[in-house]
Amino acid sequence: MNQVLHGHIVHAPKLGALEIVENGYMLVEDGKIAGISALLPEAWRGAEVVDYGDRLVMQSFCDMHLHAPQYPMLGMGMDLPLLDWLNTYTFKTEARFADVEYAREVYRRLAAELIANGTTRVVAFGSIHVASTLVLMEEFERAGLTGYVGKVNMDRNGAPGLEETTEESVRETLRWLESCGDGRIRPILTPRFTPSCTDELMAALGGLARERGLRVQSHLSENTSEIAWVGALHPDCAQYWESYDKYGLFGPHTVMAHCVHSDARERGAIKAHGVVVAHCPDSNINLVSGVAPVRTMLEEGLWVTLGSDIAGGDVLPMLGVISDAIRSSKIKRIASGWSQDFLTVAEAYYLGTTSGARYFGAGEGFAVGDALHAVVIDDRGFVDTARLCVRERFERAVYRAKAEHIVAVYSDGRKVK
Amino acid sequence: MNQVLHGHIVHAPKLGALEIVENGYMLVEDGKIAGISALLPEAWRGAEVVDYGDRLVMQSFCDMHLHAPQYPMLGMGMDLPLLDWLNTYTFKTEARFADVEYAREVYRRLAAELIANGTTRVVAFGSIHVASTLVLMEEFERAGLTGYVGKVNMDRNGAPGLEETTEESVRETLRWLESCGDGRIRPILTPRFTPSCTDELMAALGGLARERGLRVQSHLSENTSEIAWVGALHPDCAQYWESYDKYGLFGPHTVMAHCVHSDARERGAIKAHGVVVAHCPDSNINLVSGVAPVRTMLEEGLWVTLGSDIAGGDVLPMLGVISDAIRSSKIKRIASGWSQDFLTVAEAYYLGTTSGARYFGAGEGFAVGDALHAVVIDDRGFVDTARLCVRERFERAVYRAKAEHIVAVYSDGRKVK
Repeated sequence: MNQVLHGHIVHAPKLGALEIVENGYMLVEDGKIAGISALLPEAWRGAEVVDYGDRLVMQSFCDMHLHAPQYPMLGMGMDLPLLDWLNTYTFKTEARFADVEYAREVYRRLAAELIANGTTRVVAFGSIHVASTLVLMEEFERAGLTGYVGKVNMDRNGAPGLEETTEESVRETLRWLESCGDGRIRPILTPRFTPSCTDELMAALGGLARERGLRVQSHLSENTSEIAWVGALHPDCAQYWESYDKYGLFGPHTVMAHCVHSDARERGAIKAHGVVVAHCPDSNINLVSGVAPVRTMLEEGLWVTLGSDIAGGDVLPMLGVISDAIRSSKIKRIASGWSQDFLTVAEAYYLGTTSGARYFGAGEGFAVGDALHAVVIDDRGFVDTARLCVRERFERAVYRAKAEHIVAVYSDGRKVK
Repeated sequence: MNQVLHGHIVHAPKLGALEIVENGYMLVEDGKIAGISALLPEAWRGAEVVDYGDRLVMQSFCDMHLHAPQYPMLGMGMDLPLLDWLNTYTFKTEARFADVEYAREVYRRLAAELIANGTTRVVAFGSIHVASTLVLMEEFERAGLTGYVGKVNMDRNGAPGLEETTEESVRETLRWLESCGDGRIRPILTPRFTPSCTDELMAALGGLARERGLRVQSHLSENTSEIAWVGALHPDCAQYWESYDKYGLFGPHTVMAHCVHSDARERGAIKAHGVVVAHCPDSNINLVSGVAPVRTMLEEGLWVTLGSDIAGGDVLPMLGVISDAIRSSKIKRIASGWSQDFLTVAEAYYLGTTSGARYFGAGEGFAVGDALHAVVIDDRGFVDTARLCVRERFERAVYRAKAEHIVAVYSDGRKVK
C-alpha cells in the first residue's frame, strides 16, 4: 500500500549534517521509505496523502539503554553512587518483578510512555525473571516498539530475591530463549555487569552468543569503584572490557552502556571490536559517575549512541536525553578549558536517531528501503513559529518539545500514536 | 474570608529540612496563611474546604532571574559563549520589543507559561523599551504573578536599535518609574551589566536607587571573557563587583545573576553586602560559562536563590531548574573528586522556593501571616503512587512533574490556575 506523508521533513543522514525538505513528501510503500521528494511525483498522485501541513516530520528515537523494571523508581533515590544505589534502591525494586501481574501493569505503562515520547527502537534490560521478561517483550510489542529486550543474568552479588544460582541462570536463559517469539522485540543476552556474573556464567553466555548468533548488552566503566571491583574480581584482566572479551561477550552487536572512564586503550578495544557505546548523560550525572568523553570517542571513530538509562537517568523522553547529551558535552568543554568542542544540536540528534538505528540494520537518516520510524511534531503552540525557519524550529523542538507536541509516531511502518 | 486547603502539605522552612503534614489542613484567612494543622480545628469547621485529597500541596516557585524579551528565542541559538551569543542572537531579539503589540502578544504567553508551571514570584529583565516594559508588568500582573520587573539600561556596547544615549536612558527610566502603578509587579533598577552602562549612567542609577529606595538587579561574573572586559573598562576596580559597588548598586535587595566565577574575595563581598545570588544552572552550561560553586556559597553563608535565565537557560519550569541545580552540584562533586557535597532534593527545593520568597518579604516555608503562594501537584498518573510515602512522591514530583501535573496554583492568596 502506498502512502505519502506531507510536512517539513528533517533527518540526519550523517553526523552533524542535517537534511531538510520543506513542504516535502515522504513516500512510503508497504511501510517502507520509497523516497523523499520536494514535489509529489506523478506516479504517487493516487496514493493516500496524510497532510501534516506545517508540522515537522522527524526521525523517531532509539533508546539504546534502559532498565524496564526500574521504571517504578523513576525520579527517586539518586542520592547514592552506583554500587550503593544498586543495593539500596534498585535491587529491591527489581525483585518485585517476580510478580507477573505487577510486571504487566508497570511494563504496559512504560511502553505507552516510550511511544508517547517518540521512542520506537529500544535495547532494554528486563529483570532476572523469565515470566516478567516475556511480559515486557509482549507489552513492548503490543505498544508498537521494536528492538531487543534481555532477561538479566545475575548469579553473584545480588540481593535477597534477586539472585540466581549459576545453573538456574543458564537454565532460565534457555527457557526464556525458547519462549521468545519471532516478533519485533527480540532477545538479547544480558549479563548485568561483571560483578554480577561468575566466570562460569559468563562462559556459558559467551557460548550461547556464539552458537545462536545472539546479541549482547551490558555495562562498562561507569564508575571508578565498579572498575576497581572488576579489577579485583579479574586480576588476569588489565582492563574492565577484557572481563567480557575473554568470554566472547565483546564483539560487534554488543552494546556497552556508559564507558565514562574508558581510557584510550579501552576506547581502542571498543572500536576494534565493533562494540556500540550507549552514552547515558543523565544517569552519569545523577549517580555522580562522571562525564563520558563523547567528543573524543567520535573523533576516534567509535560508534556512539544514546540511552535514557532509566532509572539512573530520570529523563525518559529521548528529546530530553539528546539535549542533555549536548549539555554533558558542554560540561566536558568547560572542564577542558574550552579545548574540546561540544556536540551541536544536529550531532546530538544524529546520535539519538541514525546512530542507534544502524544497530537495527537501518541506513542513514530516512533511507530508502528502511521501515518508516518517524515522529510528527506540532510546534505551532510555541511563540513566533511562523517567523522561524524550519532549522530553527527543529532546534527548538529538540530542546522544548514534549510528548504533547508529538502528534504522531510511526514505528516499523505502522502508525502507533 | 476563611478557606481551608486539604492535602499532603510539603514545605521547606530551612535549607535541607522538609516539613510534611500528610492529610493536613492549610488554614487561609483573607489569602494569608493562618496555620497548618494535622486536624481541622474546631473554629475552622465552617470554612470553605477545598479538598485536594491525595494530592501534594507544595510551595510555589520563585524565578529570580529571567529575561522576558528573550522568550521568543527559548531553546534556540545556544552554540556561542555569552558575549558572542548576546551580539548574534539576543540583542536582535530584544530590539523587536520596540513594537508594543508584539510585546503584548509575547509577554501574555510568557506569563501564562510561568503560571502554568507554578512560578508565582519573579525578578525579571524587560528590554530598554518603556512601553513594552510597562506591558510586561501589566501582563505579569494580569496572569497573577508577583515581584519585580526592570526596564533595562544600556547606553554602550549595544546593537542597532538596542542602545540608548546616557541622557535617554536616565530620562526613560524616570518616565518608566512614573508610569509604574502600585500593583503586585513593582519596578527594579536594571543596569544590564557593567559593559552595557557608562560610569555616568551607573552613577545616575545609583542615585535613583538611594533616593527612592529602589531595588537593583544585574549580572556578575558569568563568563571569563566578560570579567576580563569589565577589568579593562574599570582598571580602578580589583574585581567585577566593585564596578557596581562604587555607584551604590551592590547592596541588600540587589540580585546578581550567575556569580559562576566569583572567588573567595568576591563571595565575601556578596555576603557582606547582603546581595542575593541568582544561580542559573541551565544557562551556565548552555553558554559554556562554567559551574557556579553553590555548595561553597551555602557553606560560606551566602544567600543563594535560583533563576531560569531564559533564554540562556532553556528550562522555564522551576521544577526543572531545581532538578538541574542538583545536577549542576553533582558536576561540581565530580570535578572536586567527590570532596564537595551535592545539593539534596530538599536543599534545591528550598533554593527554588523559600530562599527566593524571602527576597519578597516572606518567611520560612509556609509561614503564618504570609500570603499563600502554593502549587497543587497531582502525581497519581505516575506508576505506583499508592505504594510510595509522601516524601518519595515529593522527590519524584521535583524530577518528573510538568505543567500538566500542576493542577492548581495560588499566588498572593488568589487561585490563579
